[in-house]
Amino acid sequence: MKDSHKITRRSFLKAGAVASMAGLLTAAPAVSATAASAEDAALEEENCLFKKAKYIFLFIGDGMGDVQIQSASFYKGTVENDGAVVSAELNVHKFPICGSVTTYDSTSFCPDSASTATSIATGYKTESGVINMCPWTRDVPYETIAEKLHSQKGYRVGVISSVNIDHATPAAFYAHNASRNNNYAIGSELPQSGFEYFAGGEFIKVDDGGTKENLHTVAANAGYNVVTTQAGAAALKPADGSKTLIIAEKLADGNSMSYSMDAAPGEWQLADYVNKGIEMLDNKKGFFMMTEGGKIDWACHGNDAAASIHDVLALDDAVGAAVRFYEEHPNETLILVTADHETGGMTIGYATTNYDTFLQNLTKQTVSFSKFDSEYISRYVAEQTPFENVLGDIKNCFGLMLASDPEATADNKLVLTDYEEEQLRTAYAKTLAQAPSSQSKMTQADYELYGTYEQFSVTLCHLLNHKSGISHTTYSHTGAPVSIFAMGVGAEEFKGTFDNTEIFHKLAELTGVQ
Amino acid sequence: MKDSHKITRRSFLKAGAVASMAGLLTAAPAVSATAASAEDAALEEENCLFKKAKYIFLFIGDGMGDVQIQSASFYKGTVENDGAVVSAELNVHKFPICGSVTTYDSTSFCPDSASTATSIATGYKTESGVINMCPWTRDVPYETIAEKLHSQKGYRVGVISSVNIDHATPAAFYAHNASRNNNYAIGSELPQSGFEYFAGGEFIKVDDGGTKENLHTVAANAGYNVVTTQAGAAALKPADGSKTLIIAEKLADGNSMSYSMDAAPGEWQLADYVNKGIEMLDNKKGFFMMTEGGKIDWACHGNDAAASIHDVLALDDAVGAAVRFYEEHPNETLILVTADHETGGMTIGYATTNYDTFLQNLTKQTVSFSKFDSEYISRYVAEQTPFENVLGDIKNCFGLMLASDPEATADNKLVLTDYEEEQLRTAYAKTLAQAPSSQSKMTQADYELYGTYEQFSVTLCHLLNHKSGISHTTYSHTGAPVSIFAMGVGAEEFKGTFDNTEIFHKLAELTGVQ
Repeated sequence: MKDSHKITRRSFLKAGAVASMAGLLTAAPAVSATAASAEDAALEEENCLFKKAKYIFLFIGDGMGDVQIQSASFYKGTVENDGAVVSAELNVHKFPICGSVTTYDSTSFCPDSASTATSIATGYKTESGVINMCPWTRDVPYETIAEKLHSQKGYRVGVISSVNIDHATPAAFYAHNASRNNNYAIGSELPQSGFEYFAGGEFIKVDDGGTKENLHTVAANAGYNVVTTQAGAAALKPADGSKTLIIAEKLADGNSMSYSMDAAPGEWQLADYVNKGIEMLDNKKGFFMMTEGGKIDWACHGNDAAASIHDVLALDDAVGAAVRFYEEHPNETLILVTADHETGGMTIGYATTNYDTFLQNLTKQTVSFSKFDSEYISRYVAEQTPFENVLGDIKNCFGLMLASDPEATADNKLVLTDYEEEQLRTAYAKTLAQAPSSQSKMTQADYELYGTYEQFSVTLCHLLNHKSGISHTTYSHTGAPVSIFAMGVGAEEFKGTFDNTEIFHKLAELTGVQ
Repeated sequence: MKDSHKITRRSFLKAGAVASMAGLLTAAPAVSATAASAEDAALEEENCLFKKAKYIFLFIGDGMGDVQIQSASFYKGTVENDGAVVSAELNVHKFPICGSVTTYDSTSFCPDSASTATSIATGYKTESGVINMCPWTRDVPYETIAEKLHSQKGYRVGVISSVNIDHATPAAFYAHNASRNNNYAIGSELPQSGFEYFAGGEFIKVDDGGTKENLHTVAANAGYNVVTTQAGAAALKPADGSKTLIIAEKLADGNSMSYSMDAAPGEWQLADYVNKGIEMLDNKKGFFMMTEGGKIDWACHGNDAAASIHDVLALDDAVGAAVRFYEEHPNETLILVTADHETGGMTIGYATTNYDTFLQNLTKQTVSFSKFDSEYISRYVAEQTPFENVLGDIKNCFGLMLASDPEATADNKLVLTDYEEEQLRTAYAKTLAQAPSSQSKMTQADYELYGTYEQFSVTLCHLLNHKSGISHTTYSHTGAPVSIFAMGVGAEEFKGTFDNTEIFHKLAELTGVQ
């Protein structure tokens, strides 16, 4: 029912309209005299006739369910309005279309990033963990929308991620592998793609433990300008045929880019890499740029609401860069913002806070759980620091305090109850003792409480979240549908409810790739 | 940006096009000779010119967030396909438009049903607990879309709910009160509305404890045909000027209609009341019918995933009845399906099940938590039944069994671990002891575990949910955005992201009420 009666570009062509289209083109305004070839002229004519999506931005917030977006909107709104109930308008809220997308894969209602990115990039469902290969036998590769646009239409292609540049989501636009864990093989496909712009965190296995050629060298040998400093990235200028690989200068957990809330002043965020990407990719044949906010997912795995919120806002800033480009090219640009799946089972509302929320509490969290792990907990463990000696850090990093704290007034929402203090002391003891953190070695109760995270930091996040009126149900992904926001040429195709595989088919339809 | 450049009905009229419209009408095909009056003829002409939404169905799943819908779809898909990962297409998934709606009210990001229904019905935000009155002073009433269509356009109006007919959501279409708790006063407004069709559960305070006139009598005196048997409802035939109030014959918890999973064979469900409503309301001036799936909310407050799923499916069946009407009147019908807010912080995914779900487990739940409370727990408490003696009921009603059960094989997903058994025994002891169930008298730990519910039944639901890969974070409402599905005349207006107040404004714009 949804798609009945519409005249699509493909059906128009299939109906034998090519000849009459050629006739139309003859009568159309003369194409630019700067067109370098007949092929270029034909492309430009086709773009003109169909208002084709010549510039395509695809943003994927990894793990960015609707609650991740809504919590960022509520947080921004209430913090900027002194605690009032205000929902801030994010860039995604300016989009005229918002569809709803199912995310399950061949094997699970709670899918992973490899299978979901495969669905978005190729239109096929596959098993969790598989990147652009068929399910079960895993021996038939699928060509991605990025590869098709690159080879068939001459689009320049960019792939950006705040996590490793060979992590599942970015990989699913250029690589094909039976397992997302074959990191070196996946990274090896990056330079083979010939895509013009990559930017993100370091390869997961840049030389496979010293056993293989460094992938920076492999990329350089394939003609890539490999840039590993922010100054170098800032100095880049576009040149015909150039291919660029930027690895973020400052690397955080897992050699990814920093959580937005941990970034140093002036440190490049996703928006900067998108702006540079626009500069490097802009050309008359068009471009396709996939940008992943990958650390939203990592934050939500760790049930770190503050880190999630700040990384959603950082991705939304990057969307803003695309919107500014759209405003200059409204008839040729399509922007899509979606998610691969939801992570963490995040909700705005918790049992003991009932209908209240206290999102301003989250301003007191000054570091991500991950930075707290590396900069604080590692020291506590090494020094076996007594609990009483970490109270200052708890307050500085998460705002939480014991009832004995001088600032612990009756209306202070950040004072731990005896029950909460006991939970925190227990978690701290487990962290100091380096208690097991693999599910098979943990009790069921401990796994519910901590997952495989540092018991102390995940408990700090839980306590602050719950006092703020936020909660999570899992350390994994969930089956919630996600939104797709669409603006520009072809945006109307993304209304309604559909499966994530349709994103590929709609993009293919809009651009005419086979 | 969203609404720029569009030519709306209102702007068309405002632009002084009325005169030329009249000219157009003169040239338009002659209207039906059966039109009873000049007014009728004008209405019919206007409908024809604007493809006006002459028949409007508004379905509100109370508490029906996207996860409530998705879990129902996954449940149906996997149960019908022997456990495979299949997402069933519900009626709402056939709708061409799916917008995203914010639900916060004047006082909370986690709003209540009174304020949110006020927003949908009148376009104004107000405080939680207030029905169609301004916030703070609560002394200015707001006219509802149902009242406007009734008085200004001659639409016949229907209000249906699976909970009490004077509960917050249905009340917000006909009543105006500073507090949703003033039940008798709210119920008194029902007959005053003059709306033609009401169907649902019993009034919350039908005679205010015997102190006031029975509201059935009040309604009868106001010209309503008050029907309290299913046979009586089935026998109803439409008649000009008739007004009907159907109170469901079989009443369950709180004098509401039964949970769908508890309904007896042949017991009317929402779809039956919608079909009867169509029969009773159909007329040439049009109708507006609001149908609430109110027990989705009640199920989710109690964290009863199975009851939520079955009531979502029941509401979707009722939507199906509207879709069949739409198919007969595609150019005059608008169907909207939305929710007032999300309840329970429901997620598809739980910590210990990780990326797995076992939704087929939920087929083992044969009664709602509420029916279990009234038919089983009340007896256990009266008789102080030993835990060992309720194991059969646990298995029959929730599928769960102890490790000592003969069917407790290694691959049986319904066997309780020692840890889970201990949780259940503790909860049972609290239920038998009639432990406190108000937040102020409970420990923080107990409130997290049980809310104000029967400790035993809510723990049974939690255990079964978690073993199925479903979880909740609260016993209250949450701040998640909800979807609005739209089909038919004017459906396009409901695309994109917007606030719940816009639902009223869009309906007013589409129908031309002031």
